[in-house]
This record gives sequence, structure tokens and C-alpha cells, in this order.
Amino acid sequence: MRRVGTVLWPKLRVLQVYGANTGVGKTIFSSILCRAFQRRFPKVHYLKPVSTGPQDEADDHHLSSLTKNVQARCLYQFSEPVSPHIAARESPTPLTDANLVAAVSDELKSYANGSDGIAIVETAGGVLSPAPSGNSQADLYRPLRLPVVLIGDHQLGGIGTTISAWESLHIRGYDVKSVALFSEGRYDNHSYLKDYFAERDVHAISIPPPPERNPNILEDIKAMQEYYDSAANMEQVTTFTEDFVTGHDQRISALRTMPGEAHDVIWHPFMQHSERSKDNIVTMESAYGDFFQTYTTGQDPIRTPKLANGENAMLKPAFDGSASWWTQGLGHGNPKLALTAAHAAGRYGHVMFGGAVHEPALRLAQTIVSDMGNKRLAKVFYSDNGSTGMEVAVKMALRASAARNGWSYEDEVLILGLKGSYHGDTMGTMDCSEPSIYNKKVQWYTGRGHWIDFPQVKMQKGRWIVDVPDEFEGKLGERRSFDSLDAVFDFEGRAEDWKVYTNYCADMLSELERQGKKLGALVMEPILLGAGGMFFADPLFQRALVHTVRNRGTPPKNDTDWSGMPVVFDEVFTGLYRLGRFSAASFLQVDPDIVVNAKLLTGGLLPLCTTTASQSIFEAFLSNDKSDALLHGHSYTAHAMGCMVANHSLDIMKKLDSADDWAQFKHDWDASKTGQVTSVANGARGTWSMWSPDFVKDISHRANVDYVFALGSVLAISLKDPAGSGYASTAATGLRDKLLAGVNNQDEWVIHSRVLGNVLYLMAALSTNGETLGGVEDRVLKAI
Amino acid sequence: MRRVGTVLWPKLRVLQVYGANTGVGKTIFSSILCRAFQRRFPKVHYLKPVSTGPQDEADDHHLSSLTKNVQARCLYQFSEPVSPHIAARESPTPLTDANLVAAVSDELKSYANGSDGIAIVETAGGVLSPAPSGNSQADLYRPLRLPVVLIGDHQLGGIGTTISAWESLHIRGYDVKSVALFSEGRYDNHSYLKDYFAERDVHAISIPPPPERNPNILEDIKAMQEYYDSAANMEQVTTFTEDFVTGHDQRISALRTMPGEAHDVIWHPFMQHSERSKDNIVTMESAYGDFFQTYTTGQDPIRTPKLANGENAMLKPAFDGSASWWTQGLGHGNPKLALTAAHAAGRYGHVMFGGAVHEPALRLAQTIVSDMGNKRLAKVFYSDNGSTGMEVAVKMALRASAARNGWSYEDEVLILGLKGSYHGDTMGTMDCSEPSIYNKKVQWYTGRGHWIDFPQVKMQKGRWIVDVPDEFEGKLGERRSFDSLDAVFDFEGRAEDWKVYTNYCADMLSELERQGKKLGALVMEPILLGAGGMFFADPLFQRALVHTVRNRGTPPKNDTDWSGMPVVFDEVFTGLYRLGRFSAASFLQVDPDIVVNAKLLTGGLLPLCTTTASQSIFEAFLSNDKSDALLHGHSYTAHAMGCMVANHSLDIMKKLDSADDWAQFKHDWDASKTGQVTSVANGARGTWSMWSPDFVKDISHRANVDYVFALGSVLAISLKDPAGSGYASTAATGLRDKLLAGVNNQDEWVIHSRVLGNVLYLMAALSTNGETLGGVEDRVLKAI
Repeated sequence: MRRVGTVLWPKLRVLQVYGANTGVGKTIFSSILCRAFQRRFPKVHYLKPVSTGPQDEADDHHLSSLTKNVQARCLYQFSEPVSPHIAARESPTPLTDANLVAAVSDELKSYANGSDGIAIVETAGGVLSPAPSGNSQADLYRPLRLPVVLIGDHQLGGIGTTISAWESLHIRGYDVKSVALFSEGRYDNHSYLKDYFAERDVHAISIPPPPERNPNILEDIKAMQEYYDSAANMEQVTTFTEDFVTGHDQRISALRTMPGEAHDVIWHPFMQHSERSKDNIVTMESAYGDFFQTYTTGQDPIRTPKLANGENAMLKPAFDGSASWWTQGLGHGNPKLALTAAHAAGRYGHVMFGGAVHEPALRLAQTIVSDMGNKRLAKVFYSDNGSTGMEVAVKMALRASAARNGWSYEDEVLILGLKGSYHGDTMGTMDCSEPSIYNKKVQWYTGRGHWIDFPQVKMQKGRWIVDVPDEFEGKLGERRSFDSLDAVFDFEGRAEDWKVYTNYCADMLSELERQGKKLGALVMEPILLGAGGMFFADPLFQRALVHTVRNRGTPPKNDTDWSGMPVVFDEVFTGLYRLGRFSAASFLQVDPDIVVNAKLLTGGLLPLCTTTASQSIFEAFLSNDKSDALLHGHSYTAHAMGCMVANHSLDIMKKLDSADDWAQFKHDWDASKTGQVTSVANGARGTWSMWSPDFVKDISHRANVDYVFALGSVLAISLKDPAGSGYASTAATGLRDKLLAGVNNQDEWVIHSRVLGNVLYLMAALSTNGETLGGVEDRVLKAI
Repeated sequence: MRRVGTVLWPKLRVLQVYGANTGVGKTIFSSILCRAFQRRFPKVHYLKPVSTGPQDEADDHHLSSLTKNVQARCLYQFSEPVSPHIAARESPTPLTDANLVAAVSDELKSYANGSDGIAIVETAGGVLSPAPSGNSQADLYRPLRLPVVLIGDHQLGGIGTTISAWESLHIRGYDVKSVALFSEGRYDNHSYLKDYFAERDVHAISIPPPPERNPNILEDIKAMQEYYDSAANMEQVTTFTEDFVTGHDQRISALRTMPGEAHDVIWHPFMQHSERSKDNIVTMESAYGDFFQTYTTGQDPIRTPKLANGENAMLKPAFDGSASWWTQGLGHGNPKLALTAAHAAGRYGHVMFGGAVHEPALRLAQTIVSDMGNKRLAKVFYSDNGSTGMEVAVKMALRASAARNGWSYEDEVLILGLKGSYHGDTMGTMDCSEPSIYNKKVQWYTGRGHWIDFPQVKMQKGRWIVDVPDEFEGKLGERRSFDSLDAVFDFEGRAEDWKVYTNYCADMLSELERQGKKLGALVMEPILLGAGGMFFADPLFQRALVHTVRNRGTPPKNDTDWSGMPVVFDEVFTGLYRLGRFSAASFLQVDPDIVVNAKLLTGGLLPLCTTTASQSIFEAFLSNDKSDALLHGHSYTAHAMGCMVANHSLDIMKKLDSADDWAQFKHDWDASKTGQVTSVANGARGTWSMWSPDFVKDISHRANVDYVFALGSVLAISLKDPAGSGYASTAATGLRDKLLAGVNNQDEWVIHSRVLGNVLYLMAALSTNGETLGGVEDRVLKAI
């Protein structure tokens, strides 16, 4: 499958013609515009990618017969005069969207290979009329994101159909800066529409309709020629063409100045700005599916083969290899999520949530509580992002343990956590992490915890191993090797390790107790410790830690009550199918008392967070005193857009899980196992990844690779750094830069990725298909 | 002007018929549905609010002649057979949207006053065809939010127009659960559309088209009667009517169970849940413009006059009197913002912002930096809400002062602030506030500041006064009285106060210095201290404090450099026109070094925050060491939806400011002055409010009112509480409950408001008009 991106060349101006309906005059307007453009450019191309009906009636035929010197072409001609999706049924090989769009892209590229020119691409039918694949026109061509002129509907009812068509294009991310339609006296649509669109920064023009058809063909042609000549010379049309050319040039120059302007005014997150220049800021012109459309001053012209005329495309598709900082799940520019977001905005806007409820927030809370498969969970608290949600979680947990243990608000209460944890950037969550490069220069940082080292899961030279820290030397073997990832999760088969782990944890807790430390919560990222450096914790150890913690102190009153200390799972990164399952806790077969979800929650569209707690935690805040309440709440708490998009996203993800979408991935990982472990649907085993087992193994054998691992949509490659690992290491940046520059000269796309010190990680959307992943894997293997 | 709300009665089921285009058979489908419903309900009403063309051809006429026992009615009949917006030009008095919708609402109410029934409301033309006012059909009827059946387009091109029409309804917040169209063999639109909509949970039905028109009128009528009879008996149609009735009942029952379900699963912000029951949870069924559509179990049936049949409406419009926790600026369900949100989602989704830029984020940053009118500001850092943005601001400021003063990371560095400040709910911002009810039971809270008391501006008994704290006793008069609010802002005229204030501040700073306190930043909410209790700080005092702070320590290197300590303004609540100006700092004529904006930033739609800093602050983080960088960043940093909606919102707000929208408010306040102070456009003076001066004065004279103030869109009423003021006071809750229950039995709408202890505040959107505000004022005067 081809992956083409947004079409943009400095010297080929491409205009796409969409119709508000069929029969509104797309081809007539195309002809007029071709003529008008001819006065300025020697080369004017007209492209009708798909045409239905007899060839001599076809639009491209009509156009070339009526308009001199226009290069008119149709790529796919179906003889039956019906909608392309019906006509295409006659075709022996189905015409996929990807192939059709690639053919259009190639055709346009061949035009770009000439002198200064114009190309007009005419769509079939209306904006959402079906393409040969059955997908809509607007969705089919979206990857190219060509500037659009919408031909409005001059007929009765045409005001409404024109605006609706414009809205359908607009919500799909198109730039529709102009509308053109026939001026028709009776309905006067054009007067209304000009005002309507002017208010929306869209310029509308109208011209008289063509003469009535004349049965005498020669006279008919003559009348049409005259009509075209006169229309092409109208001031409105001339202005339109001038504006379009200016708009194209402005788009190019805006792209070129954008990195410099960003350098002037933007303070980027997580960046040492002394290393930033306008040449290394990546401009995201737009994004679609798995890909950004990127521009960088430092690569202008971009590293793709130059055309014969010296032209280079301005934009390069780059695979979103960090899933946009771990948020992205269902593809960029997803029209379903865009529509749902707008529906929520249209129904509610944002409605305040203090003592109030609305349907999307209620439904989302119910889904989280029920689908987590954790009988402890009862109440959902909303906030805006993982960091705020973790602040809420910590407030909840500490209050609950302080109340039970009779600690006062002056007591120094700590959390228990793992080294290398990371829970967010606000002070309360920073304090949950051990001192590190992230927080050591933050004036108010106060590490408030005890953090322990933990055994890690890694693949090295084709084998899964559990690498243990010093504390376990002599207790466990130095490293434990497994035939498959499932075997790591075979808790029953690792009874001996369990004993060592639980004993270790019990001793540690006793020692801390002896020191008089007040531990108020166990706070952990289950399975994967993300921003701290991408560590894959041995799930058996995490399970043992929870188990040991819960075996201490007052026994639980019932099976949803906490004991020892409240267990908080930060699933902001690991939850909601990032690792292939709704809940990351399920890998450990552990039910935390509090769980935090964010990132993927909205499918990767906008910020939202849930902190879900047990009834027992909730009750710690109940009293007749208002000051005992959880006095926390953000203005946009449970904003309707976020909740509704989350509901829709979770529905889609659930379908991905239950339908066949991931079956091949699951099968590949199942087949890669040695056979002694049977996969279990809902237990800890049955692990799989979207990254192929062969690829992961291959990487693990590379000389510069320390280790690698993959689970669900996540892949992490730890590179050897003689200077030492950690956030300050630059071992992985070379690989990152190589992937972004492109490993093959002929590649249509490259990979945008992020590193954490010496670790380069890659993350797919949940909807990324195997073919795209294969392309990513090829490039990584070449670059590494 | 009438303000009607969403129409929902348990026993009157209302279905609105929209067409994907004109001529798709809306009236024919209405007739068929009327017949089908007649088999189940004795009373079937057909309402055509607006009809154009000769009366005997009108849809209601057609319908009553063809369908027995259907009560058919048209409210407004225009004889010219053109679009209503053209036809309405013949009308002597313009037919406004509000009047038309009120007439429809009244008509439906009269139907509800009968036995169990059905009403079908047929729109004119297509979904976005113009109404008499020129607004679209879908926008006109949106306040009623009736359930919709969309009549699809069976003609060539009809697939696209039908889907686009559905999208236009969907983004306006309508529930469109069904589509109906004629089955037309050649284009087969119905097959395609059934699959398409099924995937979107919309049920589509198709029936054969009617017979060709017969020139013989009697035979024509007979043929149509037969057609209707047969169509109304088709299984698809029967199923449709059954589903519709079931859907209506489910909507009612879902509304009734929602508060209870919310009680089970939601953990509300800022609420002592022992006080919560399902009967006091407000369900927001939807919202539009300034109004929520609310349902509460505790008020079912709601407190409006019962109909003769004992029926009550289920929903009550409630004025959003807290501007949805201070966020709302441009009305709920604003279709322009909804479209813009969807456009951003369609063009980008969310694209990661680490080292990257996109056009909406760049443009927003440039607007913030330029429009703030503060020459110090240079760099914009994005985060998700006011609390996270304030965390960023504090990190910035403390690093800058630590660097300049040579403080180590172990030093205890404090902020200087005002008592009663509130900057957010995350730990770092909580630590910026003095100990209070909000934080005293939060285990990790550590007040890290020195907080000073300050003089407050209040209106009491018709006079503006400055009420001073004990510290000023004997220095300033106990209270200072002013003729107008502008006089309070007349800094030149208050030279004596200035001297007292600056001396006081200088003494205080010297004393703190003497005590060895390290003050790293001045952190303040300019003018209004919000969540801490709604205090109106004397602007002269805030100005004096900044002035004094800046006069100490190393003199600034240039006029954008900070001196003394960095000045952080928390304009999360007060900025972006909440008080009538882009920047609240401009009231003080002070340029802070760091400004934080959120809430209104997106017009009230979704969370987004900017922390804007001076170049000098930015440079404190520059070095060759990555760990010196501001290592802060949220996954959704600068999400495209937020930025694009913010750009659009700020554009609209700027227009509100420059156009005549606020002219009347400004005029009223200007006229209320005694004359000795001339208003100045951009200086500190020229203060005004959306709340009328007469109303504010009236309130200030009430016996149970301690004081009141109004500025921009904000009104705060401090009620006398013998038990003492503050967050724990319940003095204002009685007024709040009265406003929500409704002060007049005949009122179409009530007021939803929030209190902060003994203060009840009201906040309008920036787009709320004087008429609505007048209605709010009337109710408040009655209730107080």
C-alpha cells in the first residue's frame, strides 16, 4: 500500500473542485478557471481522477474540447453513468482509496516536473458522494489536503446544501477559502451565501449560468466558448485566480517563516532552548491517520529526489512514532471523533460539573468502573490530565491512610514507589518521584517517598530475561531467562521467584516501619514505567509488592476495602489498550484501590483524566464538615467534549479488541512462542504486541542495542552508551535523527520519534495496520 | 424577548422533520408518520411553523386534506413560494427567531395539555435553509432540541447531501436517531445510507416513492390515499413509530434515573458528599446560549404551572449564572466554535508539541504576546488549565530569582502574595495560598509564602468605598468613599493613598528581609481574587505593591527585565475580557513578568492554558545543560483544538469589544458617574459592567446585603451572616436555592448560581445581552 502525503510544491498550484451537490456546474467552473489561469500560466492541467458515464461525455473530454491548451486527463473511467461506488463494481480489481490517491499524487508530481503551472482536480458528485471504494470523496482525498473551491448550489434549497457541504469539508480539516456558484435570480442563493461566507472568511463569487443547451452541436459549442470567454474575463473570476495564486504563495511562505516565528514566541515543553534553532523545529502542517505532514527549515528542500526542474515537495509525511506523546489511539484527523467533538460542543458546550451531571460524563464513569474489571472501584473523579489526576489520587490515598492511622496533618507522610517512576509535572506528582534530572532544579521539589529498585524485563539476543538489581544478588539468579514473554507472566510457574520477592518486600516494609516511616500509599505505574525512562517492570515483582503491602496492618473489612496502604495505579500511559488491554492492572492480576487514566482516554484528541477510587477511599472524605470534602476541582471538570469523545473512542477501541483488527498481531506472537505456555484471554498471559516478534528479535541481536522490548503498541530500544545511560545520554538521538531524515532516498515517508536518554521508543496508534508497521520496521532495521 | 427551553413532556412525543434538501418528501413522510401514529394515539398533531406559497398548496393544508383526524396547523403563512427569508420581507413586522420559537413552544404546550399524543413539527426547506430571520432552520429551532427524523435525499447526489445534512444537525447538538427516504432503484441511495448510518447508530428506513401525480385531482387524491395507507402499514414504518415512542419513554426515564446513577458513580468536585442526594444533583440535559436545560429529581414535576391534564414539562431552562465556573464566554452550543473545534480535529487531531509547532498554536501565542499590551512579554508556554499554568509560572519565577540571588535548591524560597488568594488545586499552586479551609486537610500542603492583607473595594448603600484592614488603621482613614468606580481607579487623584500604600509595602519588605526571608516571586490575581472568596482588591494597593517590589534589589538591565522579584499575575479568572478588558493587568497599569491565562481562553469550550513570560525569565533557563531547561510539559500541550478554538474565540471577543455590543453597558456606567472623572479608553479608568448600575445600587441598599460589586461580567453579593463570613458560611445558599427554584410561578426560566461562603456571585457570558441580564436582575431583586 502506498502512503502519500499532502501535496505541496512551490511552483505547482493545485486547486481541488468540490461540488455542493451533483449538477451544480463543477466542470463548467473548472473550464472557466482553466481559461482564466491560462492568461497567467503557460501550463494549466485539468485532472478528473474518476469519471463515470460514456467517455465522450466525460468531463475531461468536454473540457479539452472546449478549452484550448489545457492538459486534461482522467485516470479512471467507468462507462456506467452512476455513482463511482456502483460503477466500480464492474472493475475486476477493486480500486482502493490508497491506490487512487497515490495515482493522483503521482500524476500531480508529473505536472510539478514542468514549468510554473496550475492543476485543477475535479471530484465526482458532491462532497460526500461515494468514491469507488464506497468511502466519501472528501475522506478519499483528505490525505492530499488540497486547497478547495466549493461549487455552490444555485438551485432551490441550494443555500442549505451549500453550507452543509462546506461544513462537511471544514470538519475534515480542509482549507476551503472560496465558494463559487451561478447567480440565479429567483432564489438569490448567491447573495445570501456571499454574506454568510464572508462572515466566515470564505470568499464567494457568482457568475451567470451558461446558456441553455442548443440542440445544434456546433452552435452549442460556439455558445459555450463565448460563455467561457466572457466568464473567464469577469472581474470576480480574475480576482479569484489572483487571490488563489497569492494564497498559494502565502501558504508556502508562511510555512517557511513558521519555524522562525515559533522560535521567537514559543517556550517548548521539555526542551533546552539553547539547542533549539528555527532549523530544528518541526512544523506540523497537518496530520492524518498515522502521519504528520512535516516541514523543517533545516530540510527545505526536503530530502526527497528532486524533480527534473529542481523542484522539491514542501512537505514530508512522517509516521507519528511517539503516538503524539503517547496520546494518539485512533489516527489523526479522524472524522468520526471530530464529529463527536462537535456534537458535544453543539449540545452542551462546557457545562459546569459542581453538583451537576450530564449524560456523557455519567456514561464514561460507568464504563470506566465496569470495564476495568476491578470490583473495588466505585467512584470517578474527573480532572484535565494525568498529572492533575495523579494529584487527586495522592490526595485521596493520603487522606484515607491518615484517617485510618490517626496521622495528623503535620505528620510527614510518604508514598512508597519504584525508582524511575514518573507521575507528572505538577509539584504534588513530582514529589512522588525520587530526585532525578527532572526535578532536581525545581525549587519547591521535595521528594516525599521511599523508592525501591525493581527487576526489569528485557529481550536480549532473542531471549526474554528478567534483569535484577543488586538487592537481589545471591537471592535470585543474576538474570532469569525465558522462552517467551508469556512465560514471564506465568506467575504459577514462577513460585520460587514469588517467594523471594514477597520476602524481600516484607523485609523492606518491616525495616521502613522500624525507622518510623509513615507510608501513606503505594504509587506505581503497572508494567511500564514511562517517562522515567521506559522500564518494563517484572510483573511478578509488582504483584508481590502489592500483595505484601496488603498483608500488613488492619485486615480489610470487606473485599473492596484497602489494607496496609491504598494502592494507586498510574495507568495514564499504560491503560486503555496502550499495552493491548483495557486495564494494565489486569496483567498483574491485581485490583488497585485507585486508578488514574488519561492520554488514550479521548483517543488522542484532547485532554481529560479520570481518577477512579474504591468506595472505601470515597468514604474517608464523608462527614458533616465541608472541609473534610475533597476540595479539588478544575473549571473544565468533565467537559462534555472530552467525555463524549472518550465514550466514542472507548467504543471503537473495544471493537478493535474484539474484532479481527488485532488478530494477526495476536497470532504472530502466539506462533512465536515455544508452546509450553497456553495463552489465556483475561489472565496475565496472552501477551502480544503490534510490533512483529521477528522484528523485535532482530533488533535485540544488533551490536549497538543493549536490549529491546515490545508490548501492545509500545516498542522500546535501549542503545548502548559507553558514557552511561539515563535521561542525559545522547546515544539514541542519532538514530532518531536518521529516522526523521529518511533512510532511503526514494521513501515517500519518514519516521518522527522521541527518545528518553539512551532509549528510543516507538508507539503506534491502536488503529495502525500491519502494513504501515512493516514499513516502520523496515526503516528502523536499516537505520539502526 | 421570550426565552423558551427544550421541549419535553412525558405524554406528548414531539418529532421534528428535517429535510436533507427541498423536494425530498418531508410532507409525504409526515403524512405517513401521522397515519402510522394514529393507530396508537388518539391525538396526532401536525405543525408547520412556517410555510411559503399559496395556502391551498401549503403542507398543512395538503396534510389535513389527506389525513383524517390529524390536527394540522401552520403558524406563519407567506404567500410567495420562495425561501422564508425572502418571503418574510413582505411581512410588516419582522419575525424574530425568539418569537417564532416561542410560538412553536406555546403551540406544543397546548397539545401537551391534552391526552397522550404525538406532534410532528415540519421544518421548511433543508436543514440549513434560511428561516424568516435569515438564520438557518437548524439554528432557529435549536433551543427546542426536538428529536429529529431526517428525510434523506433519494435523488442523484443524494447520498452526499443526506450525510452532510445529518452532519450539520449533529454538530448543532441534535439527536438524530433516524433517517427516512424513498427507495429509488437507480441510485440505490437508501442501501448505501442504511449501512452508513447503521455504523453511526442511526436507523434508516426507506419506502417506495409516491405514485406519479395524476392530472385528475380526484384520482390523484385517491392514489395518494392508497399510497399513504399502504406506506403507513409497512413494517419498517411501524417499527419506526414503535422505536420512536420507546425512545421518547427512554429519554424520560433516563433523565429520571440519571441523578441516582450519578450519585452512585460520580465523585463531584468541591462537594461534601454527605450533603449530596440524588434529589439535589442537577442534570444538564443540554445547554444553549446562556441557558442550561435542567432536570432535578427533587423538582420532578418541576415548579411551573401544571397543565390541565396534570402534565409538567420535564426540563427547565436555567441561566448559567456561574458562567460554568467562570469559563463560559460565548454561549453554550455555539455552532461556530463547535465547527472550529471539529476543523482542528479534522486537520490535526492532536499533534505532539515537543520541538514542534503548528499554525493555531503559533497564532495564539502571537496574539497573547501582542494583545496583552505588555512590552515585557515574549514567550508562551502551553499547559492544560489554570492550575498547571500557575505551577509553570511559579517554577519559572522561582528559578529566575534563585539564579539571580544565588540561592541553592535547598534554600526555602517563598512567594509574596495576598491573603485570600487562590491559584489552583494542584500542590504547587496550593502552596502559594495561605492556610485555609481549602488546603488545611490536604496532607502534603505546605504554605510557602508570606501573605498580606489588603484594602478592598465594595459598594455599600450606593457608595463605592475602600475598606482597609487593621494594618492601615490610623494611616489611611478607616474607609474611603468614592462617587464612582472610576474614581477608585483615578490613581493620580489618590496620590496621598499611594504614599501610604508604598510606604507600607516598603516597610513590610524591609521587615521580611530583616527576618532573612527569601522571597522569590510576587504572585497575585489582579483586581479580583476569585475562588478565595471574591474579593475586589484596591487596584491602587496592588499597583503600589508591584511598584515597591520592583524598586528593590538590582536595578533592571533594560525595560523588559525584572527587578526585586518576578511579578506573576494569575489572570486565569480575571483576564480575557472577564472584567471587560483583554488584560486585567491593564487596570493596574502594571506590566507583570509572567501572566497566566485560561478559562475564557477557549470561549468556554475546553481546557487550555498559557503561561506567558518575559525574555529575561526565559533566559534564566538557557544553558548547555539539559537539566537547566524547564522540564515540564503535558501530553496534550498546545492541542490544536484548544488553540484553534481559542483563536476563534479571541477574534469574536475582540469584535464584541470594538463593535457596539457592549456600548449600552458602557454608556449606562458612564451616565451613572458624577462627572468629575472622564473615562479613558485604555487607562485604568473607564470601568463598566454588564450589570446595570441601578441594579447594583439597589442591591447595595438591601438590609441583608453587606456589600456588592460589579465589574465587567462579574457581580458579587456579600450577604450578612451573623455566624461570620468565609467559605464555611451558608448565608448565601438560601438565595441560591431560591433562584434555582424560581421566584415567580409563571417564569419560563430560573437561575443556576454558585456561592462562595456568604458571597453569591453571578457571571454572564460576554455575549449575554441586556435583555437577558435584565431578566436575571429582576429575579435577583425579587429573591433577595
